[in-house]
Parts: sequence; structure tokens; C-alpha cells
Amino acid sequence: MIDFTCDYSEGAHPAILQRLMDTNFEQTPGYGEDAYCQSAREKIRSLCGDVDVHFLVGGTQANLTVIAFLLKPWQGVLCADTGHINQHETGAVEATGHKVLALPSKDGKITAAQVEQAMEEHRADATHEHRVQPGMVFIGSPTECGTVYTREELLALSNVCRRYHLPLYLDGARLGYGMAAGNDSLRWEDLTACCDVFYIGGTKVGALFGEAVVIVNPALRTDFRYIMKQRGAMLAKGRLLGLQFDTLFTGHLYETISRHAVEQAQRIRSAFLEKGIPLLFDSPTNQQFPILRREQQAFLAQDFSFCYWEKVDENRDSVRFCTSWATRDEDVTALIHAIEQMP
Amino acid sequence: MIDFTCDYSEGAHPAILQRLMDTNFEQTPGYGEDAYCQSAREKIRSLCGDVDVHFLVGGTQANLTVIAFLLKPWQGVLCADTGHINQHETGAVEATGHKVLALPSKDGKITAAQVEQAMEEHRADATHEHRVQPGMVFIGSPTECGTVYTREELLALSNVCRRYHLPLYLDGARLGYGMAAGNDSLRWEDLTACCDVFYIGGTKVGALFGEAVVIVNPALRTDFRYIMKQRGAMLAKGRLLGLQFDTLFTGHLYETISRHAVEQAQRIRSAFLEKGIPLLFDSPTNQQFPILRREQQAFLAQDFSFCYWEKVDENRDSVRFCTSWATRDEDVTALIHAIEQMP
Amino acid sequence: MIDFTCDYSEGAHPAILQRLMDTNFEQTPGYGEDAYCQSAREKIRSLCGDVDVHFLVGGTQANLTVIAFLLKPWQGVLCADTGHINQHETGAVEATGHKVLALPSKDGKITAAQVEQAMEEHRADATHEHRVQPGMVFIGSPTECGTVYTREELLALSNVCRRYHLPLYLDGARLGYGMAAGNDSLRWEDLTACCDVFYIGGTKVGALFGEAVVIVNPALRTDFRYIMKQRGAMLAKGRLLGLQFDTLFTGHLYETISRHAVEQAQRIRSAFLEKGIPLLFDSPTNQQFPILRREQQAFLAQDFSFCYWEKVDENRDSVRFCTSWATRDEDVTALIHAIEQMP
Amino acid sequence: MIDFTCDYSEGAHPAILQRLMDTNFEQTPGYGEDAYCQSAREKIRSLCGDVDVHFLVGGTQANLTVIAFLLKPWQGVLCADTGHINQHETGAVEATGHKVLALPSKDGKITAAQVEQAMEEHRADATHEHRVQPGMVFIGSPTECGTVYTREELLALSNVCRRYHLPLYLDGARLGYGMAAGNDSLRWEDLTACCDVFYIGGTKVGALFGEAVVIVNPALRTDFRYIMKQRGAMLAKGRLLGLQFDTLFTGHLYETISRHAVEQAQRIRSAFLEKGIPLLFDSPTNQQFPILRREQQAFLAQDFSFCYWEKVDENRDSVRFCTSWATRDEDVTALIHAIEQMP
Repeated sequence: MIDFTCDYSEGAHPAILQRLMDTNFEQTPGYGEDAYCQSAREKIRSLCGDVDVHFLVGGTQANLTVIAFLLKPWQGVLCADTGHINQHETGAVEATGHKVLALPSKDGKITAAQVEQAMEEHRADATHEHRVQPGMVFIGSPTECGTVYTREELLALSNVCRRYHLPLYLDGARLGYGMAAGNDSLRWEDLTACCDVFYIGGTKVGALFGEAVVIVNPALRTDFRYIMKQRGAMLAKGRLLGLQFDTLFTGHLYETISRHAVEQAQRIRSAFLEKGIPLLFDSPTNQQFPILRREQQAFLAQDFSFCYWEKVDENRDSVRFCTSWATRDEDVTALIHAIEQMP
Repeated sequence: MIDFTCDYSEGAHPAILQRLMDTNFEQTPGYGEDAYCQSAREKIRSLCGDVDVHFLVGGTQANLTVIAFLLKPWQGVLCADTGHINQHETGAVEATGHKVLALPSKDGKITAAQVEQAMEEHRADATHEHRVQPGMVFIGSPTECGTVYTREELLALSNVCRRYHLPLYLDGARLGYGMAAGNDSLRWEDLTACCDVFYIGGTKVGALFGEAVVIVNPALRTDFRYIMKQRGAMLAKGRLLGLQFDTLFTGHLYETISRHAVEQAQRIRSAFLEKGIPLLFDSPTNQQFPILRREQQAFLAQDFSFCYWEKVDENRDSVRFCTSWATRDEDVTALIHAIEQMP
Repeated sequence: MIDFTCDYSEGAHPAILQRLMDTNFEQTPGYGEDAYCQSAREKIRSLCGDVDVHFLVGGTQANLTVIAFLLKPWQGVLCADTGHINQHETGAVEATGHKVLALPSKDGKITAAQVEQAMEEHRADATHEHRVQPGMVFIGSPTECGTVYTREELLALSNVCRRYHLPLYLDGARLGYGMAAGNDSLRWEDLTACCDVFYIGGTKVGALFGEAVVIVNPALRTDFRYIMKQRGAMLAKGRLLGLQFDTLFTGHLYETISRHAVEQAQRIRSAFLEKGIPLLFDSPTNQQFPILRREQQAFLAQDFSFCYWEKVDENRDSVRFCTSWATRDEDVTALIHAIEQMP
Repeated sequence: MIDFTCDYSEGAHPAILQRLMDTNFEQTPGYGEDAYCQSAREKIRSLCGDVDVHFLVGGTQANLTVIAFLLKPWQGVLCADTGHINQHETGAVEATGHKVLALPSKDGKITAAQVEQAMEEHRADATHEHRVQPGMVFIGSPTECGTVYTREELLALSNVCRRYHLPLYLDGARLGYGMAAGNDSLRWEDLTACCDVFYIGGTKVGALFGEAVVIVNPALRTDFRYIMKQRGAMLAKGRLLGLQFDTLFTGHLYETISRHAVEQAQRIRSAFLEKGIPLLFDSPTNQQFPILRREQQAFLAQDFSFCYWEKVDENRDSVRFCTSWATRDEDVTALIHAIEQMP
């Protein structure tokens, strides 16, 4: 059985494990104040400029910590109704006291126009003090649907956010896979020019675990470590995170392994399209969402794991195939062969 | 410079790293539902009987998740004023909405009589609905002071807790070191007989990271995974935690490495006592708290790192020396030699 | 200018003010433990049977206190997307840590089938631990749209709630106006048979302020006063609330004044219908939502205040006219006359 | 039985009830946006200068709303360990996510030196990110012990707060009684010069209910009404609060009735002292804390209600006698007579 269910089925890139082995008996200070974290921060700064970098363990933790850090008690976070924080984090944001203000989305993205409309409606409402005040914008790129924001879309969002004094926060759980999505995909300079805060996903892109929260806006940097500790997000042996990001940002490793994953996903995509299978979302990244008939699903499920997404019509569902840094060329070849044979 | 500052300065026991290497490219389900977590659970059950076991990343996270899980909104948690949750977690418990009800303690421990008194005072207060209702008891063993509860003390606490329907929760960040503290130290059967919930510390006892929350009381087992996810405490690659605890509970490794740490600490303790240095707490575990004059501190600080604890008088402070599973025999020998030479 | 904007524009029924005058210099215990509160509770019990009754100051306060009381930390509250807690309480429920799980509604009501579907979808989702667990159902009757639940609808909701162990909570801010809505409107025995908790609105139905929270389910009665105090919902001079509800439930006053308001609203409704004006909702209660052209709005606004509701099309908006216990017959007659004259 | 248990046993000053009667059928907008609230605000501004004024229902509500408004998520509030928020609000502050950082106090007051020491200790602690950051200072004047801050003490507190950027918040539940405490008691100009926020207590000083939150610091005024609504602290018929404060601040009523209460309390105080009875606190305000033997308590309890405070020694307890705006001269005379007869 070959597993395409998700992008966190394997361990870590071997270079990371090797670093852990090599440094295992070194003694370092805890809580992210060691030299490896410092080195990783410097490497990220070489890409992103003068930013603050904090290493957290996981994505839900990063999201809830950043959002609780940015909002005032009476504020909520605007995001796509499909957004991870609205759907798949067991109300982690609400547990910090804040409403998720969901905007309708068909492909996982929201637009600058939607944010503007939400702000104008809030302002125009004579009873706006009885409503949750929108206090920031959350986006993911890639989204849960595999789609990405273009530079123009991100810039438009950033402009509207600045006009309304809304911090813009980008969840980059699969950031590398988005950056490998094509020539006009987001670059580091787009992220730092447009976002107030974003995170660079490690868990899904080569690390054992870990996400690097990057605070771009200098006005939003004070005291973040307090809330990290409070939310259980400050790892005692912080160097484990530093070592991993230091490795990922040495010799373009993050970029290289991301490109590999996307290339494998695009091979899968092409195979489905050639077979005449429609895709639920037009994804240039590592997740593909073919719409399959029940017997097609059964056929592929003999040798491959994948993930149910949603019902499309009486006979068909969309399903999800994920690749990752760890996906083997021969496994994709086997899958493509099966797609070709599929009824 | 040899570091005795804390018990999480190094990485992990080599057997753990080897397991991570060996299994790196296996594909497993996420979120703790893999075979390694299952195997680790079974090994812990072979020691603890019919219990639920959940793997979380760190101690603050374990504490805030368990406490938020157990308390009703108007309840607080009784604990020693020295307790980690009261002092060193940046208000993590309060951030979940609950007051820490601190009881005075000189050595990190609280007594059954203190809990009983708190409950009787609450009941006797005609305005008790205007006060936070004590809803559970938190203890650590070993405590932050290196002391341990005896079986009799734990049993007495458990009895009073049951009488007042208070869940008893034990923070076992250094549980192994407490179990290695001597013949009458707590055994697994004491923990499961007395506690409703406890956690087995991995971060400080051989793991890269990870704590195993053990829910003993069958009435308190429902839906814990929901709150784990909500608080960012459900690791995507949960197998990393399963693998580590599976290794620690194979062939008595947890026990063996704990005993090593305590033996090294007792060597240090003896050296201080022979030198005529008093100890702030009478610790049979891996933390030792000598009371040193300033020039003694300066002398030892030439070659060793240790941790300031608190001022004792004009000329003296207590400091802390920690050993761990990773402490080398020769490093302790060097420290002992320095203690002997100390002014 | 005659004000039909809302149902809390005036003070209180004169009988209530008289009671406050008559008892002003009596000395009573605080916090709801006085004889007036006790008497009011007994009168409510004579209608509702063996229930617990607590007096709170306002509706948002009642909702947030009851919901925080009923839910576990990882649970959310199912309600109509139009529901007050989802729209007009500035995220009060989220500020207690809980997500509002909004179900689509056209008329302010939700159905048993919707609740069942939500529960089945939650159960069927393999990742349900990553989603907020529905933990209770919130309904209002009358709703924000002026509509009411029939006995059959409420019973169906209650049945599905019991099947899934979901407490059913009814916000009765305008309860009296709902009970006066016609022969098949909800009676006390329907409320106590179907709801676990409901509140009897005073603020909008004759009182200066105050809502009576009625806890029907015996399993949900413990410690409610603790959370009342914690949320600032326990009035020091609790007797003020007791006196008001005692007066409202003496000699059928609550019923009588509610009927008056609904009769006046139905006169307004008839006038609009006779004029050929459509209504946005089919409301048998004290709120009416005619759909008016801009010039019609301007015409009526010369002498009457009313409330903008929502845009219907390019030329028309729905607006809201409220009556209350205090609405004067001659003011409604004047309004009807204007409606007849309206362009 | 004459009741000296507390200062909220009666209703309201008759002038307030009269205003409620006179205005009962006027129609006003809700939520504090009516002309009576506006007028009350102007009267308070005529005493306090350019401040924002918001009317809330009760003291716990005012405290939790202001504190949640002022603090960042990782901050706590410094206050006396005897403080109402630390003792008698069922963890209302913790329920908003914030720790109460209690400072030891013998008489209900804290000093500038204590605040300075807390700040310096926090700064000096190398692990301060693991501790709750002090984010504001809470004081009451009069305190729960009946004591008051002098101008010098308040100014010193204010200076240290400004040096450390800590908002200073004064709970004035009994503010009037403090202002009537003697020639050097706090004046309005002291409050506005020293406090960032304070509240003027109505519930205990002549109103049926209500507290006026005064925000002095212009930097802390934005969006307070959002959090009021969110915490259930925005009264629908806000005019009820406006009317009461407008009345209290017409013709020096607040001042006059406060002075009356304090004069009556001082008569009681003198009677105890003349009888040779010691007082637990040296209170110049409306609460007196004599230390009585059990048989003395029993003797007085035949005709008077008072409140148990705390055990002093084997034979004696301190008890509390409160006067208020409503205390009758002849009742105090009867009490004094009883004190003289006391065994």
C-alpha cells in the first residue's frame, strides 16, 4: 500500500536526522535561546530581511498563538469559510476568546474586495458595537484546496488590510509547495512586503515537526515569547527546532524538496487529466483533488491510500492525493499506471 | 564549561535517535493513531493497568490541557505556591480561565491536611459562591524543589481528594527521577491507585521531547483528544512521540537512565555535605540546591554552569545543580573535585 | 415623534415602579437570597413545576452565562445563523471560549432535521476530533424575525436533542409576546417539557430590566450561582429583580401586557397588508417587518421612528416596527392612519 | 432587627425613584445613548474634566470588563491579596484569562514600593518570559477594610505606575464614602490626576444599581463599548443608569448622602472605642470592624444584624458594621445604646 493521504506520513529529511545525531550530546540553553536557533534565524533573515523569527511545534499552535497575540478581546479574525482555523482546529481560535469571521470561498481564497466589504458593512452598521470587530485577516497559501495567492492578489489584500489597520497573517503550513508552484508564485519579498506575520511550515515540508513564525511588522514584535510560553508553544529543547530550520535553509534544501513534491503532484495531475478526470480545484501545488466515480476509487484503493474530500454528485466524490518531499518517483509512476488502467 | 543548569540540555537517548532513523521513511497515520503510539500505550498499560494514554509535546502544554479538561468554569486548582503552574508557565492556567489556588509550601509539597482545610474553609464560608470553588488538586513529584511525595503522603492526599470529589493530578515532568529516589519512592501502582491523571515526563528523562498523559479514572476519559487538538497539543506526526515512549519503556530504559541521573546527583550531594555546605531542600532526586557563598559560586562558575535559585542571606544564595540521563560520570567527578577545592 | 424602533424604549409597568417605591426602605439580604426573589421563584414554579429560577440583569448576560455553564471547553452551540448570539452580542459566546455553530435559517428558526444532520455529519467525519463538538442547541422564540416555534417544532427539536444528549436552551427575551401569538403558541408546559433551560424575558416585557433563567433539567442545576457571580451576573440588590418578576407573575400581568403588545402589532400588520405592502417575515408577534419603498419610508419617518432591517431590492428595504407592553392604542391608530396615507 | 450587615440592604435614594417615576413613559434610545446618560456624563465631566464615562450595572462586572479591556493576554493585574478581585468575585478576572498578582497587605492597601519591587523582580528574573507580566495595578479606595489612600499614597502609586507604563485602576465601589472620610481624603482632581481609569460606585451609594466607569487616559478610550456589550455590561435601557447618576450628581447629592453615612459610622466607631473595644482596621469610612468577644456578639445580635469578618483569637472575632446613605439616625442611636450596655 502506497500512501498519498497526507504530507506528513514520513519522518524528516535525512539531513535533519543526521544533524540531530551529530549534535545530540552538545549542551545548549533551552527555550530557543541556543546558537542553532540563532543560526536558523539568521538564515531566514537573509531571505526575509529584518524580521523576528520564533520556532513553534505545530500549525494549530502557531495559529492560535499568533491570533491571540494580535487581536484585542472584542475582535475577530476574517478568513475563508474553508480556512483551517474555521474548520479543523476544534475551535482553537474561539478557545482564545475570538470569533472566526468566515467569508464565503469556493477555492480556499478570499479577495481584497471581500475584506473591504466586510469592513464597510461593519462601519455602516449603526449597531456595530454589538458585532465582533474585524481585527485581522487570516489567509493560507497554499490553501486547504491546494490553490495559491498570486502576487497581485496578495498585494491587493495587503493594501486593503493596511487601509483598515488590519494585520495580515499568512499560514504557510505548505509554504514551500506554494513557492514551487510556478513562475509567478509568491517569493520571500512578496511575503515580507505584504504580510505582517506569516509562518514557514516545517512539519509538512521536510522537518520532523516545527513551524517558523516570522513577524515582519516591527510594531507587533514585543512580548511574543511570553504568549508562546503561556500557550505551551515554547519548546524546552528549542534547539531541535533551530537545528531543523537551520538545515532546511542551508543550501536551498527547503526549495529543492518543495519543488520535488510539486513535480510529483503535477505528474499525478496530468495523469488524471489525460484520463479525462476533472479536478475539483485547479491546484498547482502538492495536493490534487480528482473527482472519481465510486468504482474508480475502489480500483485505486487496492494499492494506494488517499483521502475522501467531499461528495460531488450521486456517483462521484472528490478525493485528495498528496505528495511531499518524501514522495518516491517510482510510487508516483505506479500510481500513474493505475490511473491509466482505471475503469 | 560543563553544564549542570537543567535536565534538558542534551538531545535524546541514542536508542531513541536510532529508532527515528530506522523508521524514518515508513508511512504512518497522523495524530497519535499509528502503531508506534499503540505499542507505547500497551507498554505503559503493562505497568499501569487499564488506563488511557495520550502523548503531548511539553509540560506546560500537558498541564494546561489536563487542567482545562478537568475543571468547570468556576473552579480553580489547588497547588503549592511553589508549583510550576503558579510560577513558571506565564499564567497558562489562568489563560484557560481558571484561578490557581496556591497553598503555602516550604519544600514544594502540600499535605492532605492543607487540602482538607481549604475545602472546609470554602464550605464554611457563607459567601462561598463569591469565591473560586476548588475543583482539583495539582502536585508535582518530584517537586520543583527536588523533593518527592512518600506513598503515605500521596495516599493521604488521594483519600482527601476522593472525599471531596477532587480529581488528583500529578505532574511527572521528572517522574523517573522520583521513582529512582530510594526504596520507598512512588511505584506505578501507587500512582494508579492514588491519581486520577498523571503524566510521565519524557523531555527531561531521555526523550527529545514528549510527555505521556495517563488518565486513570475511567470517568475522566471521554473526549480528551478534542481538547488536545484545540490547545495545539496533538502532534501531526504523532508517531514521533509513540516511538520515543516505546523505546523508553522497552527493557526498563526509563528506569535505568533515571537511576543513573539520581546516582550522579547523590554523588554531588555527598560532596557538598562533606564540604560542610548546607542544602536548601533535602532532595533525593536529580536536583541539588547547595547554599553557597558568593566566592564559592564564583569559584565553581569557572568551569561549571548552574542555576541561581534564591537569596538566602547577605552572603549566600542557594543554587541548583541538575543531573540527567545524559550526565557523564567524569563530569560529576570533575565537579566533586572542584567542590573539594572550593574556598 | 412616536417611537416603534424597539421594545425597550420606555421604563417599566407602573405596578413595578409602585412596588419599588413601597419597599424601598426595607432591608433585605443581597444576591437574590431575599423574600421577594423567593416569592417570584414560587410564582414561576407554580407555572413551571419543580425548576430552579435565577434572576439576571440582561439578555446577553443570560445567554453567555448559561452557555458557558452548559458547554465543555471543546464544545460549541448550534443555532440559527440569524441568532442573537451569532450576530448581535459582540462575540460574547466566543469570549467564553466556545464557537457558535451557525445553521442556515431564512426565518430565524432551525429544525430538528438540521440538528440531526449536524450531529450525523460530525459523527461521520473521520476527523471529528479536529472539529468543534456540538454540545447544545440555542433557539429563540420569538426569534429575531418575530417568528415562533410551534409546539410540534419544539417537541421535534427536543426529541432530537435528547437523542444526542444536547441540552436545549431557549432564549425567551420576548417570551410573553410569543405566548400571546395565538392559540397554538407555546405554553409553559411545552417549555418545561422540551427545554433544559430557558429564560423569561423581563427587559422587553414590562420590567425595568431583568431576565429569569429557568433550569428545568435537574442534572444541570448545581453551582449555577458560582458562574453567575463570576460573570458579573449576580445583582447585589437582587431583590430588585425578585420584586419585578413577582409583580409580573401576580394576577397574570405578564400575560396581559404581552397580549396587548401583540394586538397592537397585529393592527399594524393588518394595515400594511391592506395597503398591499408585503412583509419580510410572517410574524404573529410584536415585531413587524414591512418591505417599503424609499419614499414610503420617508413618508412614515416624518412622524414615526422605526428600524432599518435589510435591503430587499434596488428600491425597497424591509424595516421593523416594534410594539411593547407600553405601546399606546392612539399611537398605533396614528401610525395606521399614516400607512393608509402613504404613497 | 436593624441591619448593619452591608451597604446595599435598601433600595435607592427617593430622588432617584422619583426620577424613574417621572420619566417612565418617555421613549429613549437604548444602550446608554440617551439624553439622561449624556446629561450624567456632563455632570461627571464638570467634576473630572475631559473624561469618557460609561455606565455599568455592578462592581464585579465593572472590574472584569475594565481589566479585560486593559490587559494583554500574557499580563496580570497587581493588587492587594485582600482585594475584591482576588477574593470575592469567583475568579472573574481569571475567567477573562488573566492572573491576579496578589501583593501582601494588612489593611487592604498596597504601596508604591510594593509595585516597584514587583516590577524590578520581574525585570531581574532571567526567566521573566515564563512568568506573568504585571500589566496594570488595581486598588480600591475605600478598601475592603474601610481604609483609604491618602493623596500622597495615591500620587506615589501613580508615579511608579507611569514609570513602568502600568495603567492604574481604582475600584470606587464606595468612592463617596472615601471622599467623605476627612479633610485630606481624595478629591476628584486627585483621582483624575493619578488614575487611568476608576469607577464611581452607585450601588452602595444611593443608586438602585450602577457604577460609572471613568476613563481618564485618552490613550485607553477606544472601543470600550464593544467590550461592554461583549461582557453583558451594556444595559438595554441604559437611561436607567443615566437617570440615577444624573440625580446623584445634581445638587451635591452624592456628596451629601456619603457624608451622612460616614458620620453615622463614626458615631458607631466612637461608641466602640469609648467602650474600650479595639478595632481591626482604622477606618475613617462607613465600615467599622470592632473586635468582640463571643458574648458581646451574642448580646448585640439580639437586635442588630452585622457581619462576621475573621477570627482574632480564641475568644474574639472581628465583625463588620456598615452604614450607608440610608442609615437612620435613630437606628444608630439604638446601636450605640446597646454597645454601652454590652457585657
